[in-house]
Amino acid sequence: MSRKMPIIHSKAVIAETRQFRIEALQLEFSSGQQRRYERLARGGSHGAVLVVPMLDHQTVLLVREYAAGLHRYELGLPKGKIDPGEDNLSAANRELKEEVGYGARRLRHLHTVSMAPAYLEHTIDIILAEQLYPEKLAGDEPEELEVVPWSIHEIDRLMRCGECSEARSIAALYLTAAHLRDRLIDQPRP
Amino acid sequence: MSRKMPIIHSKAVIAETRQFRIEALQLEFSSGQQRRYERLARGGSHGAVLVVPMLDHQTVLLVREYAAGLHRYELGLPKGKIDPGEDNLSAANRELKEEVGYGARRLRHLHTVSMAPAYLEHTIDIILAEQLYPEKLAGDEPEELEVVPWSIHEIDRLMRCGECSEARSIAALYLTAAHLRDRLIDQPRP
Repeated sequence: MSRKMPIIHSKAVIAETRQFRIEALQLEFSSGQQRRYERLARGGSHGAVLVVPMLDHQTVLLVREYAAGLHRYELGLPKGKIDPGEDNLSAANRELKEEVGYGARRLRHLHTVSMAPAYLEHTIDIILAEQLYPEKLAGDEPEELEVVPWSIHEIDRLMRCGECSEARSIAALYLTAAHLRDRLIDQPRP
Repeated sequence: MSRKMPIIHSKAVIAETRQFRIEALQLEFSSGQQRRYERLARGGSHGAVLVVPMLDHQTVLLVREYAAGLHRYELGLPKGKIDPGEDNLSAANRELKEEVGYGARRLRHLHTVSMAPAYLEHTIDIILAEQLYPEKLAGDEPEELEVVPWSIHEIDRLMRCGECSEARSIAALYLTAAHLRDRLIDQPRP
């Protein structure tokens, strides 16, 4: 890709709260056009993980969790922030134990996705978790999450149910389905 | 779903910039636990659209666009805000003309997705655009966007290319592929 990156002439924090930091960027594009953009910075975050817990070859464990942004319950994949000093696989395993009550013997990074790259610096690592075993850790959730088993082959039914809107979870489920299909083709099992 | 919604005891705007408005919510969960949550409100926004422009039965038109949140170029689907008084299909057609240089004779709402429902109020409507014809409208982009045709059957290659991280675009491409497959099954063509 040969397009020249815009030059950041200045960057300033214009608002900061406990959870968010908003930056204003003064940009010059290679076309010569100048623009002021605002974006939400990650701040001191160490990143985040979205876990795809596969109970068996077709059952994924979803959680029903309150989402304050939309003020409704969302059916989606367990997720959480990476703690300082933790790697993304350990964070995924910890979140899985806290939110779903399982640990995983096999963890694999599938893809890193962004949510709204035009104005959010945040990204999230999608981690496939397999070979699960029961283990519960106490988390910081304000209430127990309801765990909902779902067939990975029925993403269309999940879309129609009206409770799953999160693009990250939808992308992660399709990516997992594609990954499992490819693996089956590469290494056929009896 | 029988779980009782948390009660919002108070809601206050704690920071506001040209583009963002941050709210603090004081919440009480049905478990009795109280929490303070922050979220990014949509403000005066009328919503947004993500367009999946199909040039033919398999070619989707992607755009390479600067993303200030990540300070890099992203390969993804064209998108933009809905203007006041506009419906989502008209907004999709306008954005398509501005960013890609095509209009669509057939527009269809596939799904509405959220990006980070735990702390973002924003959602985006995924609009499938078909039966395209050349038409260019001047937009407000700071530079011309590069249009990149891609096969809808090669989402895995798009994932590997390293330029597409946006969960909304990934979800929209998989949802479109599933929709086109279902349509083909429902109404077989010679």
